[in-house]
Amino acid sequence: MNVDGVPYRTIWLDPGDRTAVRIIDQRKLPYRFEIATLRTVGDFAAAIRDMAVRGAGLLGAAGGYGMYVAALHARDDRFDADMPKAAAELTATRPTARDLGAAVRRQLEAISQGSDPSEKRRIALRVAEQIAEENAEAGRKMGEHGAALMGNMSRRKGGAPVEVLTHCNAGWLGMVDHGAALAPVYAAFDRGVALHVWVDETRPRNQGAALTAWELARHGVPHRIIVDNAAGHLMQHGMVDIVIVGADRVTRAGDVANKIGTYQVALAAADNGVPFYAAVPASTFDREIHPEEIPIEERDPEEVRRASGLAVEETDASPAAGARAEDNPEILSVLLCPQGSTARNYAFDVTPARLITGLITETGILSSPTAGRASERSSSHPG
Amino acid sequence: MNVDGVPYRTIWLDPGDRTAVRIIDQRKLPYRFEIATLRTVGDFAAAIRDMAVRGAGLLGAAGGYGMYVAALHARDDRFDADMPKAAAELTATRPTARDLGAAVRRQLEAISQGSDPSEKRRIALRVAEQIAEENAEAGRKMGEHGAALMGNMSRRKGGAPVEVLTHCNAGWLGMVDHGAALAPVYAAFDRGVALHVWVDETRPRNQGAALTAWELARHGVPHRIIVDNAAGHLMQHGMVDIVIVGADRVTRAGDVANKIGTYQVALAAADNGVPFYAAVPASTFDREIHPEEIPIEERDPEEVRRASGLAVEETDASPAAGARAEDNPEILSVLLCPQGSTARNYAFDVTPARLITGLITETGILSSPTAGRASERSSSHPG
Repeated sequence: MNVDGVPYRTIWLDPGDRTAVRIIDQRKLPYRFEIATLRTVGDFAAAIRDMAVRGAGLLGAAGGYGMYVAALHARDDRFDADMPKAAAELTATRPTARDLGAAVRRQLEAISQGSDPSEKRRIALRVAEQIAEENAEAGRKMGEHGAALMGNMSRRKGGAPVEVLTHCNAGWLGMVDHGAALAPVYAAFDRGVALHVWVDETRPRNQGAALTAWELARHGVPHRIIVDNAAGHLMQHGMVDIVIVGADRVTRAGDVANKIGTYQVALAAADNGVPFYAAVPASTFDREIHPEEIPIEERDPEEVRRASGLAVEETDASPAAGARAEDNPEILSVLLCPQGSTARNYAFDVTPARLITGLITETGILSSPTAGRASERSSSHPG
Repeated sequence: MNVDGVPYRTIWLDPGDRTAVRIIDQRKLPYRFEIATLRTVGDFAAAIRDMAVRGAGLLGAAGGYGMYVAALHARDDRFDADMPKAAAELTATRPTARDLGAAVRRQLEAISQGSDPSEKRRIALRVAEQIAEENAEAGRKMGEHGAALMGNMSRRKGGAPVEVLTHCNAGWLGMVDHGAALAPVYAAFDRGVALHVWVDETRPRNQGAALTAWELARHGVPHRIIVDNAAGHLMQHGMVDIVIVGADRVTRAGDVANKIGTYQVALAAADNGVPFYAAVPASTFDREIHPEEIPIEERDPEEVRRASGLAVEETDASPAAGARAEDNPEILSVLLCPQGSTARNYAFDVTPARLITGLITETGILSSPTAGRASERSSSHPG
C-alpha cells in the first residue's frame, strides 16, 4: 500500500543486498515512519517479540524470512543441526499466531528436500518469497470478496456510509500487503463505497489507535477512534453495520483466536444483530486444534500498567499541543496505576464460532458452521 | 475509610471554617494524595467537570454542598433568583448521574420552605449534611448485604478466594464513604473472607487502574489490574466468581446506566453464567425514566486520544523505573494516535436489566425483575 504516494510492503528482501530483510518498524508508528533491517535469527526474534513486526499474516512472512537468514548464516558443517534451533527460537516468540509456526515448519520441510546447504539456502529464499507473496495475494482477494459484501450493504443503506467497526490492527500493517480485516475497507473505498470506520483503540498496546488509525488516515478513509469499552454502546444505538476483525488462529469449528477483547466485541455484535466477520487467509486455519488447546500468550504486565505515546503537557489541552508534540517526538511511557499494584496481560482470547457470522477468506466468504445460533440469539434479545 | 491510618471521607465541611468544603482531589490519585477546597458554585462546577470529584454517590453529595455554598454567597435581595441559576450550573456539569440532579432538586425544594435567606441558608447546610450522611450510611449497609453474599460464595468455594471483577471506581472514592461496588469487598475482607479483585483499568480515564487499585492497595486487598478487553477472557476461563459494579442511574425496570464498557462486561458475565450485580443506593434509582431517555454524556475526545500518568522513560523497563517516577511525580499526557485522527468519547452505557442478576441496595439485595432471561441464556450457551 502507499505511504505518502510510495508503495510499500511491511517486509521485503532488499533487492540490492539479499542478506538484508527490511521491515517497517511498527513500534514507532504513528509518530515516525522508519525502516529497520533484520539480518539474523536473533534480529527476527527480537523484532517479533518487541512487536516491530506483528499481525498474523506478517508474522508468517517474518517466520519465512527468519528461516531464510538462518539458512544464510548456518555453517555448512552444522546446517542440519542449526536450522531446527532457529525454528524453535522463532516459534517461541509468539505462541498464539498460527502463521508464524506454520511458516517455520513449512521452511523446515522444504529445506529438508535440498541435497546440500547451498541448495537448501536457495530453497529457503524461494519459500520465504512464496510465503510473503501468498499472503499479499490473500489480502488482495479478501479485499475483493469483502468489498462486494460492503457494496451490498451500501446499496441497502441507499448509499449512506457503511459503518464498520474493527478491533486491533488487521490492516496492511498486519499482513504483507492489502490487509485482512481492512482489505475489504480499502477495496470498497477505492470503488467509491461510502464508509466510516470505528477504530477500537485496543489496549494494552493500542494497535488500533496507533496503527489502524495511521493506515486509514494515510489512505484517506474516514474514521474515528473509540475506547474498547464503547463498541457495545455504539452497537446498541444502531451506529455499526458490520464488524470485521482479523484472526491469529482459527479452529476447524470456526472458533477465532484474536487480540484480547475480540470476544467482547463479538458478544455485543450478537446481542444487537450486527454481522460479525473475521477476515482470515487460509494460512491462519488450524484444522488440528480445539479452542481450549490454543496457547494464549501472556505478555509483560508493564504493557497494562503503562501506556506509551508522544509526550504532551497535561495542562495543555489546546489543539496545537499534539502538533507541538509531533514537532518534538519524544515517545514516553506513563504509569497508570499505583506502583505496588500488579497486572495480568493476556494477549488473545477465543471467540466461539456461534458468535461469528462468517469468515472472509481468499476463496470467498464462508458462513460460520454454527453462526445460526448467534443470530437466533440476537433476534430473541433485541438490544 | 482510612488513608495511611487516618479516617477520611471524600467530601466534608471544614468544622473550623464552615464556608469551606474540602475534597480529596481525585485527579491527582494514585500519585499524590491532596486535599482541595471548594468555596463557590464555580469551584464546585469546575471540580465536578474536571472530575476532581466523581462517582455517582459523591456527585450527589457535591450537589448538596454546592447548593449550600451557593446559598451562603447569594445576596439577600436576589436569593430566590440566584439559587435556580446555581442549580442549573451544577446540574449541567454531568448529565448522566442521577444523584447530582436529584440532590440539587432536593436542595431547591427544601430551601423553598424557608421563610427568609438566613433560614434558607440553615436549611441548605442541614440538607447538604443529610445527603452526605445518607450516602455514607447507604455505603455501609450495601457493604453488609454484599458481604453476606460473598461469605456464602466463599463457603461454596471451601474458603478459596472469591474472585471479584469490577469496572471503573465505585469504591469509597465514588461515594462519601464505604463505597458502592467495593463496599461488599471491604466488608467481606474485614470479616476474613478470602478474596481477590480483578480491576478493569476503565479507559479512557482509567478510574479502575488509578482509583480502584489505589483504594484496594491502601486497604490491603489483593488485586490485579487488567485491560478492559480481558474481562471476557477471564470469565471464559472460570477466573471470575462475581461481577460487582456501581451505577449512575437505574430505571424502574432495573436497567443500569454506568461507566462506558459496563454493558460489555455484563454480556460476558451472562454468556458465562457469572453473577452480575450493581451496587446502588436508593438515591440512584430514577423511577420516571426509560432507558432510551437517559442522557449519555459525551466528554472531550482528547480523553480517548491520550492517556495520563506518571512519566517513565520508554526504554526503562526495570522494576525501579516506576519507583523513580514516583520520586519525581510529573503527571504527563501522551498522545496515542495520529494527530489528524479524531475520536468520540461516550462516557456511559446502559446495561439492560435482563443481564443483571441483582441490585445490592441499602435495604437488601433485589433480584433484577428480568434477570431470569440472562441466566437462561447463559445456561443455554456455555462459554
